[in-house]
Amino acid sequence: MIKKAINDPERIVDEVIEGLIFASHGRLVKVPGVQAIMRAHIEDGKVALLIGGGSGHEPIYTTYVGRGYADASACGNIFAAPSPQIIFEATKAVHRGKGVLYVYGNYEGDVMNFDVAAEMAAAEGIEVKYVRTIDDVSLPKADGRRGIAGSFFQVKIAGAACSGGLSLEEAQRVTIHAQQNIRSLSVAFRPGSLPETGQPTFTLGEDELEIGMGGHGERGVARKKMMPADQLVDLMMGQIIEDFPLKRGDRVALLIDDLGATTMMELLIVNRRVRQILDQRGIAVHDTRIGPYMTTQEMAGFSITLFRLDDELARYFDQPASNESFLKP
Amino acid sequence: MIKKAINDPERIVDEVIEGLIFASHGRLVKVPGVQAIMRAHIEDGKVALLIGGGSGHEPIYTTYVGRGYADASACGNIFAAPSPQIIFEATKAVHRGKGVLYVYGNYEGDVMNFDVAAEMAAAEGIEVKYVRTIDDVSLPKADGRRGIAGSFFQVKIAGAACSGGLSLEEAQRVTIHAQQNIRSLSVAFRPGSLPETGQPTFTLGEDELEIGMGGHGERGVARKKMMPADQLVDLMMGQIIEDFPLKRGDRVALLIDDLGATTMMELLIVNRRVRQILDQRGIAVHDTRIGPYMTTQEMAGFSITLFRLDDELARYFDQPASNESFLKP
Repeated sequence: MIKKAINDPERIVDEVIEGLIFASHGRLVKVPGVQAIMRAHIEDGKVALLIGGGSGHEPIYTTYVGRGYADASACGNIFAAPSPQIIFEATKAVHRGKGVLYVYGNYEGDVMNFDVAAEMAAAEGIEVKYVRTIDDVSLPKADGRRGIAGSFFQVKIAGAACSGGLSLEEAQRVTIHAQQNIRSLSVAFRPGSLPETGQPTFTLGEDELEIGMGGHGERGVARKKMMPADQLVDLMMGQIIEDFPLKRGDRVALLIDDLGATTMMELLIVNRRVRQILDQRGIAVHDTRIGPYMTTQEMAGFSITLFRLDDELARYFDQPASNESFLKP
Repeated sequence: MIKKAINDPERIVDEVIEGLIFASHGRLVKVPGVQAIMRAHIEDGKVALLIGGGSGHEPIYTTYVGRGYADASACGNIFAAPSPQIIFEATKAVHRGKGVLYVYGNYEGDVMNFDVAAEMAAAEGIEVKYVRTIDDVSLPKADGRRGIAGSFFQVKIAGAACSGGLSLEEAQRVTIHAQQNIRSLSVAFRPGSLPETGQPTFTLGEDELEIGMGGHGERGVARKKMMPADQLVDLMMGQIIEDFPLKRGDRVALLIDDLGATTMMELLIVNRRVRQILDQRGIAVHDTRIGPYMTTQEMAGFSITLFRLDDELARYFDQPASNESFLKP
């Protein structure tokens, strides 16, 4: 039983949304009647960006709503997809006449519910397109990959594209272009726990780690004995680069994501090794993000994401954007 | 034995510094020969700001070096003050002829070593002044309070003051003015662990929490049974406000700090209750920061910091600043 600062387990998501809206200082509001938040002021004539997924992975998706990011986030219960009704209501709330782009993780429940909501929106004359996040290289491509921390980069590009005056079709094209250039791999050392029950999301031996564990404690690709950080990073980078043949002169954005309870010391030690490997291969790093972006409650472990940037993607990547992540510069 | 992504335990701080410098993309460099980092370009003629303390509390202090924040950070070993030699070398490296302001936590080792370094600097003709952080209300004022998460706000004000063309005396005065208006209180649910040994920093019963625990697992003011978040926040806010008589119409900046392994869901639920209390008392919130600012490795728990702003402090608070915290907007 893990101790957490919560009140009524049934009201966690509602209270989180209230806390988030307080912290936004007027920039975010609740979508009336449903578990979703949106920007208080959405520019007329823009393609709207709607993101979302299960709660419990904060900051993603909820706090990536803001100028240059998404216009709204549909919040499911903990580790559960938002209902079609939530997504549909958020779709109507953000639509400004130019269509709505959905970006969400490629998980069965999310796919089903976002698809149903898109049909409901179409019936009301709202055009919807979607791009799913599929960055987790731990599974074969053919099996349909999950979206993990690289989803952050995809949301950032989609946000810039939707804010940049593109049409819905063009914003979708740019976001798919990003999707095809993002690869992540995670490792877990200790489970998180479900706040409703206090129970751990999986079990792992005292001296074990699991590579490729999904965002909810799904089975990964390899369970191994603990090893030094450099050896672990070498293994992970080997697997990412095998899947993603980067060549000398390529340029990437780099994300080292904290799954929830990993110290910044560790993340920086990991970053050091990742950079040694990339430098040796002649791959330039355009920007670095380190910290909690997509968590699984207080799971210990991290993921490494490489996002290959060409000139078009770099231009969108560098667009200013302001989220509600509260860890401001 | 806690599993962490590290290599040689003896080299943790060195490798963290290497990882940090990689992540700064040229904005930070190492102070030659010692465990300290500094801005690659420090403007001529500015009062220099040097911060620092034991490692293991990242992001503080190390990542709060940057334009509008500190000019350098002196890094001790884990939970140990930086040596006088480290501080002295960093002092010489950042000095631009206008003196150096030290901001650090009021802990015995830090006080001693920063004082010795200031004498060494004086012997070389460098004028040094200091302001210690003392925001932890868990101890009586007379006993000399510790600096905890509110140190972040104090560094932010000191950074703005030192970047704003003030003299050393004036920058110190403004920083003391901030110091006198910052109050924090923390609560711990689970200990962190020392990366060198993997051992927990303290023990706490399965159903217990401890209020007022210091940044390293020092004894707090009260050990209690777990309770709902709202009840806990009521208790903590009561103790802060008893110490810090805010009145209707006052304005504060608010920080909810993650001690290392607390989910953002919890921090937002805490924020919700803090805001309900402040709203009821007619106290306005100027800005909100939520996330890991000062951690104790992967300790679970949080702290609440209130920083009362008058017009002068609000002006410095609102100055733009860029840290190396990597969780960019």
